[in-house]
Amino acid sequence: MTRLHSDVSACGAEPATEAVGSTPAQTDRPRTNPACPLPGPLTLRARRLGLHSHSEPIVILRTDSAICRSEGLAPHSRVELHAGGRSVVATLFQVDDVLDRDQVGLSESAWRLLGLVEGATVRVKQAPPIASIASIRRRIYGHRLKLDDMTAIVRDVVDGRYADLHLAAFLTATAAQPMDEEESWALTKAMVASGERLDWPFAIVVDKHCVGGLPGNRTTPIIVAIVAAGGLTMPKTSSRAITSPAGTADVMAVLAPVDLPIGAMRRVVEQVGGCIVWGGAIDLSPADDIFIGVERALDIDTEGQLVASVLSKKIAAGATHVVLDIPVGPTAKVRSAAAAADLARRLTTIAGRFDMRAICIQSDGTQPVGRALGPALEAADVLAVLNNDPTAPQDLRARACTLAAILLEAGGAALPGDGALLAEQLLASGAAARKFDEICEAQGGRRDLPVSGYRHSVTTPVGGMVTAIDNRRIARLAKLAGAPDAPAAGLLLHAQTGDSLCGGDPLFTLHAESPGELAYALDYAVANPDIIALEDRG
Amino acid sequence: MTRLHSDVSACGAEPATEAVGSTPAQTDRPRTNPACPLPGPLTLRARRLGLHSHSEPIVILRTDSAICRSEGLAPHSRVELHAGGRSVVATLFQVDDVLDRDQVGLSESAWRLLGLVEGATVRVKQAPPIASIASIRRRIYGHRLKLDDMTAIVRDVVDGRYADLHLAAFLTATAAQPMDEEESWALTKAMVASGERLDWPFAIVVDKHCVGGLPGNRTTPIIVAIVAAGGLTMPKTSSRAITSPAGTADVMAVLAPVDLPIGAMRRVVEQVGGCIVWGGAIDLSPADDIFIGVERALDIDTEGQLVASVLSKKIAAGATHVVLDIPVGPTAKVRSAAAAADLARRLTTIAGRFDMRAICIQSDGTQPVGRALGPALEAADVLAVLNNDPTAPQDLRARACTLAAILLEAGGAALPGDGALLAEQLLASGAAARKFDEICEAQGGRRDLPVSGYRHSVTTPVGGMVTAIDNRRIARLAKLAGAPDAPAAGLLLHAQTGDSLCGGDPLFTLHAESPGELAYALDYAVANPDIIALEDRG
Repeated sequence: MTRLHSDVSACGAEPATEAVGSTPAQTDRPRTNPACPLPGPLTLRARRLGLHSHSEPIVILRTDSAICRSEGLAPHSRVELHAGGRSVVATLFQVDDVLDRDQVGLSESAWRLLGLVEGATVRVKQAPPIASIASIRRRIYGHRLKLDDMTAIVRDVVDGRYADLHLAAFLTATAAQPMDEEESWALTKAMVASGERLDWPFAIVVDKHCVGGLPGNRTTPIIVAIVAAGGLTMPKTSSRAITSPAGTADVMAVLAPVDLPIGAMRRVVEQVGGCIVWGGAIDLSPADDIFIGVERALDIDTEGQLVASVLSKKIAAGATHVVLDIPVGPTAKVRSAAAAADLARRLTTIAGRFDMRAICIQSDGTQPVGRALGPALEAADVLAVLNNDPTAPQDLRARACTLAAILLEAGGAALPGDGALLAEQLLASGAAARKFDEICEAQGGRRDLPVSGYRHSVTTPVGGMVTAIDNRRIARLAKLAGAPDAPAAGLLLHAQTGDSLCGGDPLFTLHAESPGELAYALDYAVANPDIIALEDRG
Repeated sequence: MTRLHSDVSACGAEPATEAVGSTPAQTDRPRTNPACPLPGPLTLRARRLGLHSHSEPIVILRTDSAICRSEGLAPHSRVELHAGGRSVVATLFQVDDVLDRDQVGLSESAWRLLGLVEGATVRVKQAPPIASIASIRRRIYGHRLKLDDMTAIVRDVVDGRYADLHLAAFLTATAAQPMDEEESWALTKAMVASGERLDWPFAIVVDKHCVGGLPGNRTTPIIVAIVAAGGLTMPKTSSRAITSPAGTADVMAVLAPVDLPIGAMRRVVEQVGGCIVWGGAIDLSPADDIFIGVERALDIDTEGQLVASVLSKKIAAGATHVVLDIPVGPTAKVRSAAAAADLARRLTTIAGRFDMRAICIQSDGTQPVGRALGPALEAADVLAVLNNDPTAPQDLRARACTLAAILLEAGGAALPGDGALLAEQLLASGAAARKFDEICEAQGGRRDLPVSGYRHSVTTPVGGMVTAIDNRRIARLAKLAGAPDAPAAGLLLHAQTGDSLCGGDPLFTLHAESPGELAYALDYAVANPDIIALEDRG
């Protein structure tokens, strides 16, 4: 092996002087003598387009601009932008007019990442090849990723250097051939390292997570209220929905502000012992929400991603003891007890490698919990439980108490075996409800629940016993009605498995914030009459 | 099971009348009584934005437009557009101004698919879930795809209903877990069915294909010229580059028009016995170029996709006998003789299921063929061989003759064993060169070769024997210089494996059409001094 000699660094790109061959391309002299030194990236004037593009940064240039010619840029080229010491990689679209030739149009995401003002000078050039994408390519063909690979991937994701199709390739590859334990650990570690990490002045910090797939399972606000009322510290960060009609952050957001910066979250927890905030706003494991956006578009979840998503948030939040609820059912995210046991083993093992104790429990995942799907409707269920409302959904209440009991014992607030009684007392006495109010006030003040403007009740034409509710399709129905982006949208169930219904009895009520979404959900309900399965009587 | 009753079809969406519970969301009456009947999709005025977005159709709406509110649309929503009996599914971006509230901005791809005129009425609504994407999701998790699944996927791809990230997920899933024979067959059949299919008035129609991965291997124009000069019919459709610096269509395009519509191609073949045209222009297997665009962005190839891509084009082109060249080498697309044998078996078997005879041969894939990488530079190599230029690359000449000989024998133009001699005679006599001129004229006339404006020669600082040339990185270097989009760009090799070089001898010359691309390629060359490996003498 030897090193090439090239004079590029010493003012290269003189006209070629080597012997040339006999074909036209070889005999003609170059048309242009490029100036010395080689041109750097060209500068353009920034134009804010007010363009909303999900998370992928978009840049728009004139097709006939000098920069597109000199850099050989084409639609879908990956372009690197520099301004004021910051840089971002964006996907290029081109326009025939709209912009001036010396303007560069930027999407809101690119604008924010660069921190621009209108007319600011932006340097634009071809993005260099992203080295971590070669790792993804190797992963597609079966090579395992090491910590270094994962670290580079996660850093590039957080820095906005990936197009959506690169994210889709990474997520699909790790869904098709699941991550092994080392990869899960490496991704978790890389995700923790990519964001903020909280450090608390408490020996014990508890946390919980439910491995989704169960519509309406909104135990978190109740558990935080009980556990904090019991004297433990529970700084809860939650996600927005991935493929469900509402995530805990979506539900909490209709009750109180959840987009707290890290300092504000810390003050809330030190003041009242707990919080329920959106993890994305405090930059814990910031890659997570970017992955989630693409997982949502593809409607896939992967175990490795799930483990890293759950644990990286807990580790970064400084938890010492976590309870992880894994609902199991034929239409839940985890379909069998064996799969749940595998997942529990993976979660517990990897948590242990980060000195965090994880307690996994399997729960009933055969039907929705509570009666509501959608942010505001689920929030109403939460309030009903906290307020000891006799019409509150008892399954939601019982689940929350079970998980709170485990944390009370794990955290030393209750002796082993006494957690369930303490949880029940804290809830029944109103201590949990008062604590929840304190938390809402500390986070910025209680909000009024939004109310849906468009509703439609779906009834059963014939009677029978409810034999099954399809979690996935009932969730899809709530999503079609607008949840979670429309907070008042979703659906309210009027039947549970085992109920006996008469012809004309209501099955569920759809709630929407727009007539289009209501119609869309109704179309789906009519096309899927067996989402709630009834055993015919005749 | 029972069917749900819903009165949506009979003027539904009256205000809800069912018993309501005790929480605010349940007790408040809906704010608005939606009109009856339910609103259909809203109509907007089309605005052509001159927006170039690769192949993915893009639609842009005002964030505050009625349609976004009523349909609950957000950035990255999938939107269905209807106009004049046509429809398309597009990805939504939103803007805060630029457009009027009743305007819908369309990318060039969406504009073309709908065949619009400025100001035309377009109906817009949420795209219904795309059923075939559920098949892709199942495929990610290991379920095999049947003919029906593949047919639906390919139809939706051709109809522009997929976002890039869906295409990326499909291609990644079938790369991570390769297609089995049934899937390859099904994808091939679905791709043939999705486009035009040629039917010739000849009993024997020959064709050839080289399974890429070998830079500069531009035998096709030479083979078509020889075989057509020998009296056989060879209607050759070629692809543009996937991950290489040039595809045959890119090379031929610098010599003559290749974007011939189907009728023109037919006339060329009937007139002169052969053609070399771009397959995409005549709508044979139209899904192929869409897949290729995303494969290029991800820089991946998959065997199943490769088999379907190769065979669907040949079958749709009406070939009866095809020779398939599989170069094998450590940095070629196919790395081992065993892998090549597997691929050959797959290609031959599936071709047989379509009544097409495929003859596969393995060839040397250890280094580039010829001396050029990039459309115009490779075209110059082709002309040198056809014109019996003594400086023509002899490896390219020999490969073309070997493959032409197989086709001459398979097609009955030569007796078994006599093909090589006939091929040599047709080339040496100038008959092939004259036939090539006829083909170029019939396709629309010979073009002058474009010439690069920016060049740089890279030399070796020390002497030694060339022990290896890395096909992948030398191809990447040519691509960084601008090939294939910049037709004059690429590189010219001055050394082959086995050559002995002195310090200061040229290794290769980079050709570019812009200074930015030249600098970019030089950066890569300097960072990768071992692309051409030399054994040191001292």
